[in-house]
Amino acid sequence: MISSDIAGQFGSIENLVSLTAGQYTSGSLILMVSYGAHFAFILFFLAMAWQLAPRYRIVPIMSAVVMASAGLSLMREFSLWQESYELVGTMYRPLAENSSFTNAFRYGNWTITVPILLTQLAIAFGLPRPELQKRAARMIVPAVLMIWTGLYGQFGETGDWSRLNIWGVISTVFFVWLIVEVRGVITRGVQTSPAQLQAWPKNIWWFFLATWGLYPIAYALPQLGFTGDVVVVRQLLFSIADISSKLIYGIILSRYVLRRSALEGY
Amino acid sequence: MISSDIAGQFGSIENLVSLTAGQYTSGSLILMVSYGAHFAFILFFLAMAWQLAPRYRIVPIMSAVVMASAGLSLMREFSLWQESYELVGTMYRPLAENSSFTNAFRYGNWTITVPILLTQLAIAFGLPRPELQKRAARMIVPAVLMIWTGLYGQFGETGDWSRLNIWGVISTVFFVWLIVEVRGVITRGVQTSPAQLQAWPKNIWWFFLATWGLYPIAYALPQLGFTGDVVVVRQLLFSIADISSKLIYGIILSRYVLRRSALEGY
Amino acid sequence: MISSDIAGQFGSIENLVSLTAGQYTSGSLILMVSYGAHFAFILFFLAMAWQLAPRYRIVPIMSAVVMASAGLSLMREFSLWQESYELVGTMYRPLAENSSFTNAFRYGNWTITVPILLTQLAIAFGLPRPELQKRAARMIVPAVLMIWTGLYGQFGETGDWSRLNIWGVISTVFFVWLIVEVRGVITRGVQTSPAQLQAWPKNIWWFFLATWGLYPIAYALPQLGFTGDVVVVRQLLFSIADISSKLIYGIILSRYVLRRSALEGY
Amino acid sequence: MISSDIAGQFGSIENLVSLTAGQYTSGSLILMVSYGAHFAFILFFLAMAWQLAPRYRIVPIMSAVVMASAGLSLMREFSLWQESYELVGTMYRPLAENSSFTNAFRYGNWTITVPILLTQLAIAFGLPRPELQKRAARMIVPAVLMIWTGLYGQFGETGDWSRLNIWGVISTVFFVWLIVEVRGVITRGVQTSPAQLQAWPKNIWWFFLATWGLYPIAYALPQLGFTGDVVVVRQLLFSIADISSKLIYGIILSRYVLRRSALEGY
Amino acid sequence: MISSDIAGQFGSIENLVSLTAGQYTSGSLILMVSYGAHFAFILFFLAMAWQLAPRYRIVPIMSAVVMASAGLSLMREFSLWQESYELVGTMYRPLAENSSFTNAFRYGNWTITVPILLTQLAIAFGLPRPELQKRAARMIVPAVLMIWTGLYGQFGETGDWSRLNIWGVISTVFFVWLIVEVRGVITRGVQTSPAQLQAWPKNIWWFFLATWGLYPIAYALPQLGFTGDVVVVRQLLFSIADISSKLIYGIILSRYVLRRSALEGY
Ligand SMILES: CC1=C(/C=C/C(C)=C/C=C/C(C)=C/C=O)C(C)(C)CCC1
Ligand SMILES: CC1=C(/C=C/C(C)=C/C=C/C(C)=C/C=O)C(C)(C)CCC1
Ligand SMILES: CC1=C(/C=C/C(C)=C/C=C/C(C)=C/C=O)C(C)(C)CCC1
Ligand SMILES: CC1=C(/C=C/C(C)=C/C=C/C(C)=C/C=O)C(C)(C)CCC1
Ligand SMILES: CC1=C(/C=C/C(C)=C/C=C/C(C)=C/C=O)C(C)(C)CCC1
Ligand code: NA
Ligand code: NA
Ligand code: NA
Ligand code: NA
Ligand code: NA
Ligand code: NA
Ligand code: NA
Ligand code: NA
Ligand code: NA
Ligand code: NA
Repeated sequence: MISSDIAGQFGSIENLVSLTAGQYTSGSLILMVSYGAHFAFILFFLAMAWQLAPRYRIVPIMSAVVMASAGLSLMREFSLWQESYELVGTMYRPLAENSSFTNAFRYGNWTITVPILLTQLAIAFGLPRPELQKRAARMIVPAVLMIWTGLYGQFGETGDWSRLNIWGVISTVFFVWLIVEVRGVITRGVQTSPAQLQAWPKNIWWFFLATWGLYPIAYALPQLGFTGDVVVVRQLLFSIADISSKLIYGIILSRYVLRRSALEGY
Repeated sequence: MISSDIAGQFGSIENLVSLTAGQYTSGSLILMVSYGAHFAFILFFLAMAWQLAPRYRIVPIMSAVVMASAGLSLMREFSLWQESYELVGTMYRPLAENSSFTNAFRYGNWTITVPILLTQLAIAFGLPRPELQKRAARMIVPAVLMIWTGLYGQFGETGDWSRLNIWGVISTVFFVWLIVEVRGVITRGVQTSPAQLQAWPKNIWWFFLATWGLYPIAYALPQLGFTGDVVVVRQLLFSIADISSKLIYGIILSRYVLRRSALEGY
Repeated sequence: MISSDIAGQFGSIENLVSLTAGQYTSGSLILMVSYGAHFAFILFFLAMAWQLAPRYRIVPIMSAVVMASAGLSLMREFSLWQESYELVGTMYRPLAENSSFTNAFRYGNWTITVPILLTQLAIAFGLPRPELQKRAARMIVPAVLMIWTGLYGQFGETGDWSRLNIWGVISTVFFVWLIVEVRGVITRGVQTSPAQLQAWPKNIWWFFLATWGLYPIAYALPQLGFTGDVVVVRQLLFSIADISSKLIYGIILSRYVLRRSALEGY
Repeated sequence: MISSDIAGQFGSIENLVSLTAGQYTSGSLILMVSYGAHFAFILFFLAMAWQLAPRYRIVPIMSAVVMASAGLSLMREFSLWQESYELVGTMYRPLAENSSFTNAFRYGNWTITVPILLTQLAIAFGLPRPELQKRAARMIVPAVLMIWTGLYGQFGETGDWSRLNIWGVISTVFFVWLIVEVRGVITRGVQTSPAQLQAWPKNIWWFFLATWGLYPIAYALPQLGFTGDVVVVRQLLFSIADISSKLIYGIILSRYVLRRSALEGY
Repeated sequence: MISSDIAGQFGSIENLVSLTAGQYTSGSLILMVSYGAHFAFILFFLAMAWQLAPRYRIVPIMSAVVMASAGLSLMREFSLWQESYELVGTMYRPLAENSSFTNAFRYGNWTITVPILLTQLAIAFGLPRPELQKRAARMIVPAVLMIWTGLYGQFGETGDWSRLNIWGVISTVFFVWLIVEVRGVITRGVQTSPAQLQAWPKNIWWFFLATWGLYPIAYALPQLGFTGDVVVVRQLLFSIADISSKLIYGIILSRYVLRRSALEGY
């Protein structure tokens, strides 16, 4: 068995703890349901696009792209989970067959999906093209910096708390900057929305805060200890965040533009 | 060989019994046919959507999403089955290559599919939007509670009968609550249906009771004993329930809205 | 090496004989071509649907569903073939890596595909709905009984000739009943077809007899002896039957409804 | 290591020679690019169909079907290549893990694709239906005989030159017969083509001869010796032939019917 | 362990160096994100085509084909990466399980994708057909020569610097020739573009230079030394180049033709 010292260098607490059968199964379950949901909703969003006025079709299409990309990434996490734990006695032991678990694919995937999710918001609100580009760029810059500093920091989760926390704080600064930019887009959304739909951008705002806010919690969680429960709860948090910030968010935006479409007489 | 005591901790009777070749093949067969049918009917439902008035298109699309999600989950059960039994002498022995079988993916998947199936019903009956949302939410709450309490309870099926039965009863209470809510939707369905189609909601009601009712039977079955036949019969029950409550149900709802579409002159 | 006595219990002659390189390659080839053809024609049938009057679109769509379902099942047979033979010296020996071959997936898959193929016929002939349902049901009942009794009987092919033959005869009785029902549908097809197309149902009738008739031959074949040639010839028979009774049959029905579409001025 | 005598019985020179790293990589590369190209162009041909007058849509759709079927077969050849060579010292040695390479999947796949490619030609030239059927049948008969005699003969390539050559000659006789039939279709194509497009059938004729003519060269090549270079060059020849006779041929026919569509005012 | 002398013959520095866990994970991450992005954007480009005037639809369709082909090739690179490194102690050691890494699949894939990317440019600018064909051919010739000479040269990267550099220079000569041809197409693009869009071809020109220019840098990089950082940075460079020269380039061209479509009143 690999010593926990060496296991720590992989920068993922999943490689440090053995899981009970129940914990191992829960983790598989969470990841399996996540990628299944993401893949299945590709169909939903593509079909949705055909119900909309042409100018809004891009909104569900972007969700379909996000579903495909995140689904592939989550399926990869699922395979990693299956491969890297191995049943020894009554426990699932990590680092099986010399393969290690990592959440880094999630962060990598966000580099693709987060810019799409943010641009999608500005498009759904129907901002005119020059403003759209400017606002999208101003959201994407802090978002990518947030993700990459967080990616670098998360390798500290196996015990290098200063690395985890310093980079976590830096990442959070970018997150705050991002929140300010998103707030600006929301405000414009209220202005551009037809009267009957003006509550939507405001609700999306709270939904955005609540769901994106889960990611930093998952990031900080390993400090609660290296236990199987922390491992499973963190995967659960990530999954809830993924399904709400991508899938449900996509349904909300799609329904919003469906209403706009209808109000514009399509 | 792992002792049955330890095997019991995986919470699935499939890990407790060796199967004859006939039983093992039957199990593979049942799971293979199930996932094949679910995947194949994605095409059917997508194509169906194109025949309908726009407002009803979402009904078969939701079935396509359910087919994709359940198909992935069932394919996973099939792979688990293949991997976790191994031929030793003339019998297939469980817990092969240190991998264990579990039905938990089914319950996980229901968390995605059941809310879709219930909402689909209210949409098919053409309920006006505010009522639709309220009724969908009132069905989804007991449904999810039913699934999660059942998921927790089913880990008791390897011998912890009090866990199995207490949580089974709690889950059944939520099921009864759900049935009441569904009954309400059916009643509204009778009211909103054109005269020629008023028999449909009533028939769907009986179909719903008969097919959803199979799941608690499958849940309780392990109490009949830890034998290969119980293992196979339970998979068969699950599969019949899956194909009827998702696939055939989807065909029925799609044909119902096809008729409504036609009567509304589309 | 597992004794042929034990190997017999798997109920498939494929597990009883070693194959030459030529035989092994032929078997792989036959299965590979079959699943490749089924998958590839999904595209054809879906695209075909778009050329038809709406009421006939369901005909090629049903073929697409059959292609997907049978393709998955045949790909599974192909994988089983690859996994369960292993090169020892100059021969491919069965039951490699403790995995056994079985044709049971075929029978399981027919439970899905045969009802679709039969209903498709009645739809193509444009029977009015109440008659359609009655006739479809009257074909599906004997068809499913035929398949399941045959599935049970085929486990006798490794030497239990009385099991093979008694259940084969029972299955054939259901087949005869099915043939009578199909004949009825064909007769109605002649009546409903436009004058220019009245030869079509009659030709479909002969095509039906010739292609479905191959399956019982494949069923009985193992009685010719447990040799590599019998194994390969049987897979070939199954494949010819599959490609003609599903794929070519689908092309014929699609072209028939294309003509009807055209004659009805679409 | 298996003696070359025994290796010869697999009937593929790929199993007789060890490859350098460069040769092994080149082979992988060639097969990988081929299947990638075939799969990717499915999208192209399907999308192309939507640009055409309805009666010509079937032409690119047939190409899509060919791409899917040949892509699956080439992906299989790629996997075989990867599995059946194994690095020993500085060379890739064949028959690794007891798995043998074979080109037989190619011939099997041609049984599906060649009839489609030939029928496609007659359809593109817009021949009236009864003539279309007759001409298609008259091309398919020699084509299938050519393929199957060639398939039988190619097992002689590991040294049984008389088998290789006798069946090669028989196959070539069928090829000549096929060429005569194709020439007839080309002549009819010149007649049916609008004036501006009459050069097209003639160019297709030369393209047909040049690309189909590559296959017999690949067939005969092993007589140059059992060396890694012959192995790789033959795979290259096959790939060039595949991409030109299926993919580029499909693009040419699709553009031809696109022009016809346009000239017919669509 | 295989000596670095022998490892060198595989012609890829990836086989020469052991990676830290961080480096190994970064490489996996980069490749995973790349193939995920390429696959996900297939959906985007296909959906995009439906928004355009018929004559421009081919532009995003070509991007979809490029996404599929490059995605398959990048997924292959990802699998190679996973298979060919193996955890030994605290480092990932190359040439695991006797499998070697290679970038050659990239070059092979370019043979398919680069001609498509170049032709796409000329089509987007709406050049009349005879000129289109001439210009496409004049770009494709130097491009393919550039790729193949580069492919041959890159096998020198494990230390045969003269091979690497001489063929690199030859390849660069073809690149310069290609640049001249592309410049010609850009100039024509400025002429054919509506007044409001005349800045687009000029911007595409700079974008083309900046992104295609990354490939020769990646080619030359191994001369900086055989270290894990060089390995990872090179994969990063390749990925940035892939995503910008194919995916973002495709978005730019699609938006350009969307504007042209709109200006032409579609
Ligand atoms: C603030 C903060 C973070 C925020 C992450 C967020 C907000 C991620 C959102 C991801 C989404 C929406 C993905 C969709 O595909 C990190 C990076 C965890 C690092 C710790 C500090
Ligand atoms: C009452 C009861 C149950 C009911 C389950 C049901 C009704 C499941 C329905 C699932 C469906 C329809 C899935 C479709 O994808 C459980 C949880 C087994 C636990 C025991 C008590
Ligand atoms: C009479 C008879 C049989 C008939 C089988 C048939 C007629 C199968 C048709 C299958 C089709 C058409 C499948 C398409 O997917 C069995 C069961 C072999 C058992 C022996 C007697
Ligand atoms: C003459 C001749 C042959 C010709 C083969 C041909 C012409 C194959 C064409 C294949 C195509 C077009 C495939 C497309 O998917 C064989 C059989 C090699 C055997 C040797 C003699
Ligand atoms: C100049 C030069 C090169 C240029 C490569 C280029 C420009 C590749 C472009 C690839 C693209 C755009 C791929 C898209 O799929 C090589 C061959 C590395 C060899 C060294 C010299
Ligand atoms: Na595992
Ligand atoms: Na993610
Ligand atoms: Na097994
Ligand atoms: Na399920
Ligand atoms: Na094998
Ligand atoms: Na079948
Ligand atoms: Na290999
Ligand atoms: Na082929
Ligand atoms: Na590895
Ligand atoms: Na590439």
